[in-house]
Amino acid sequence: MGDSEAYKYERIADDISHLIECGAFKPGDRIPSVREMSRQRDVSISTVLQAYYLLEARGLIHARPRSGFYVRSDLPSDLPEPEISSPAPDPSQVSMRQLVSMVALNDTHNPQLIQLGAAHPNPSLAATEELNRVLTSVARRMGEKSGLYDYAPGCDELRMQIARRSLIAGCSLSPDDIVITSGCSESISFCLRAVCDRGDAVAIESPICFDTLQTLEALGLRALEIPTHPRDGISLDALRFAVRHNEVSACLVISNFNNPLGSCIPDDNKRALVKLLAEHEIPLIENDIFGELYFGASRPSVAKAYDDKGLVMLCSSFSKTLAPGYRVGWVVPGRFQSTVRWLKYTSSLAAPTLSEHAIAEFMASGNYDPYLRRICRTYERHVASMSQSVRRAFPGETKLTRPSGGFVLWVELPETVDSLQLYDQAQGAGIAITPGYLFSATDQYRNFIRLNAANWAEEADAAVEDLGQIIARLS
Amino acid sequence: MGDSEAYKYERIADDISHLIECGAFKPGDRIPSVREMSRQRDVSISTVLQAYYLLEARGLIHARPRSGFYVRSDLPSDLPEPEISSPAPDPSQVSMRQLVSMVALNDTHNPQLIQLGAAHPNPSLAATEELNRVLTSVARRMGEKSGLYDYAPGCDELRMQIARRSLIAGCSLSPDDIVITSGCSESISFCLRAVCDRGDAVAIESPICFDTLQTLEALGLRALEIPTHPRDGISLDALRFAVRHNEVSACLVISNFNNPLGSCIPDDNKRALVKLLAEHEIPLIENDIFGELYFGASRPSVAKAYDDKGLVMLCSSFSKTLAPGYRVGWVVPGRFQSTVRWLKYTSSLAAPTLSEHAIAEFMASGNYDPYLRRICRTYERHVASMSQSVRRAFPGETKLTRPSGGFVLWVELPETVDSLQLYDQAQGAGIAITPGYLFSATDQYRNFIRLNAANWAEEADAAVEDLGQIIARLS
Repeated sequence: MGDSEAYKYERIADDISHLIECGAFKPGDRIPSVREMSRQRDVSISTVLQAYYLLEARGLIHARPRSGFYVRSDLPSDLPEPEISSPAPDPSQVSMRQLVSMVALNDTHNPQLIQLGAAHPNPSLAATEELNRVLTSVARRMGEKSGLYDYAPGCDELRMQIARRSLIAGCSLSPDDIVITSGCSESISFCLRAVCDRGDAVAIESPICFDTLQTLEALGLRALEIPTHPRDGISLDALRFAVRHNEVSACLVISNFNNPLGSCIPDDNKRALVKLLAEHEIPLIENDIFGELYFGASRPSVAKAYDDKGLVMLCSSFSKTLAPGYRVGWVVPGRFQSTVRWLKYTSSLAAPTLSEHAIAEFMASGNYDPYLRRICRTYERHVASMSQSVRRAFPGETKLTRPSGGFVLWVELPETVDSLQLYDQAQGAGIAITPGYLFSATDQYRNFIRLNAANWAEEADAAVEDLGQIIARLS
Repeated sequence: MGDSEAYKYERIADDISHLIECGAFKPGDRIPSVREMSRQRDVSISTVLQAYYLLEARGLIHARPRSGFYVRSDLPSDLPEPEISSPAPDPSQVSMRQLVSMVALNDTHNPQLIQLGAAHPNPSLAATEELNRVLTSVARRMGEKSGLYDYAPGCDELRMQIARRSLIAGCSLSPDDIVITSGCSESISFCLRAVCDRGDAVAIESPICFDTLQTLEALGLRALEIPTHPRDGISLDALRFAVRHNEVSACLVISNFNNPLGSCIPDDNKRALVKLLAEHEIPLIENDIFGELYFGASRPSVAKAYDDKGLVMLCSSFSKTLAPGYRVGWVVPGRFQSTVRWLKYTSSLAAPTLSEHAIAEFMASGNYDPYLRRICRTYERHVASMSQSVRRAFPGETKLTRPSGGFVLWVELPETVDSLQLYDQAQGAGIAITPGYLFSATDQYRNFIRLNAANWAEEADAAVEDLGQIIARLS
């Protein structure tokens, strides 16, 4: 199935969604058969099936055995999206260590809990076993060399592969632009250390994942939270105001599929963002760790693509796409290259040698792209299914994001619901979620939660239903 | 060969050395045959051969085919050791980044150079291929779990193995005391960040490896260099004076086999060191990365063994013993445990999962101890051979350390020799060495060099001879 074919299923699904929403197809109506649709649209049977499965996941149609696909009679009413956020206008100290240690790190690997919390990829979708086979073969071929230090900038072959892929994100990086690290967190930590001193303010999207907030806290940096739109990311107007009225040492965004919002900064905004910051000589630290996990027809660009002053520091890793346990990330530090490379050396010397080479070889094998497309489609279905489940199970006042990539949902609950109380009660019911408190340095999101849809399955559906009942009691 | 047997060869070698030094055996004399000696001492033939090979490496005897072993006619005169160091008495800013980047990082993996510089272990002695086989088998058994994050404190099995081994270093650690990191450098960086703020002074041994100095520089810490004895390590008198007259936030030592000195702090001094620092409530960061590479009959203790206030932070890794490229180290942070664990989380999340499990399994296999004894004996021979070669090839005013473990030598050259000039000319002659400038923040060691004996071979012997000629020209 070629790439152009691959995206036709999405158009078909969108067209039918539209016809259902506007009432052209009513509850109980039979939609065109797979064979009919395949003929009409001149696409393969499997493409139509792909579209119909997505509509099923969205809760719009269901199959009746030996009869066909029908519009559901219990169509979920679409929940509104959360508004653009409105965090505190001043930079704040981050002091969330206790909370994060208590909440986020303890239940991550607890097999007793249904994991809707930590934003980990689905291990059974991951290519770990294939990657391990590549690693085994690399280890045999490298022999004693596999035991050596691979000092920064790190593995040549891997930097070559990353440079090649940068084309589809709108860049044309050279391997020399790239420094390999031990993960995206390490990349971000180095970028912050390269351009900020203790006490400095960093403009960040709000909400943003607590990992970032914890890195700021550990480095003694203050968070200047900028209003962020659930679909378009950081507000440029708000950022413009903020950098005019504050001394800001860096700006940090998750440009593609913010965690937890799923927002993706549109291309024009990315260009404008880079320009705005360049006018103030403020470096932009761009976290693109979810960038390859897009639901649309093409990979969104990175802000780095619009950088002609070397002020954008692009950070990413393979931890959301391939194998977090391999501990390999990278950074394109622009004009801060030599400092970042030196920080890597003084902090942890080198990335794991075998991991680097195995990932490089897997990327070069030609299996990487089909694998990525496969997991993207699955995550898209999982996100749709979980959204549907939330719509059915949560109170009517709930607001819900519509991510265009990644695998997490950001849910705004009725104002009376305290997400830490919900966290506690959910844990009692065997369910892990992430309370909204963890996504701001200033308690902006007490009635929000983040849900991870990566591991969607029947038990997760039941868990969302249970959550709905707990929320109803807390409302 | 049992352990008690294993060390008899050293006593035999020492006894014969003594008899040669005091003139009981003269140049040209035949020493007792292997068979004779084996009968006399009631040890195996292989033990005697081990002793005789060591004496050969020390340049004291040589074999004549079908005749036996004879005292060499060209006995090297023993070079004196360097004096105790006398660095500047005040804390200094560290600013060596340019120099280290230029000198230490560029030629490390240059296959054109004979590597007597970087303190890397010998890759062909390392157990990399065996370890890779264990890793392969672990990967197969773990399956998709091998791809997961293994958050701090890290792999249970590995912490268990490290805890067990702590017994032979005089401790009785529990697995809960240990945090796994991505190498000893990372461990040290976390310890410094846990107890120091930018601008603070850290008391360190002088000379000390530039990695440590670079970590201080990257964190904005000042180095208070303490006089250090080439055999007994840090001077307690000098340290006592220093902490009385300076605000010191931490003390950092390479307790066993300082790099570059090869010094080992005697047990009584370790106890006194811990006590002295505890009186001032100053944390001790103990780097024990070379601790398992001892030439004597038993592993030296760690200072941590004398710590009853939780003020000693013990750091180590498998990078000198097993495989640097695996990127696994650890730290026992004492009362700073929760901060160090949190710093690991905010800096790089986790250590590489497969590496951790493979090392744990290799340690549990029973092959680890025989392997360590094997490489220790080889490094001892290499250090002896290189010492002998230096004695023959370098000017008479040269001073040379007598390390009791590790694999590096610290060489004091005539005062007129500038080690950076020597570094340049040596590189021109295809030889990598490390100039003394890199081992102090205040240019204490301009006429010193560090030599790595790990890769000792015939070509290294010739390289030392070439170095001797360059030095003669520079003297």
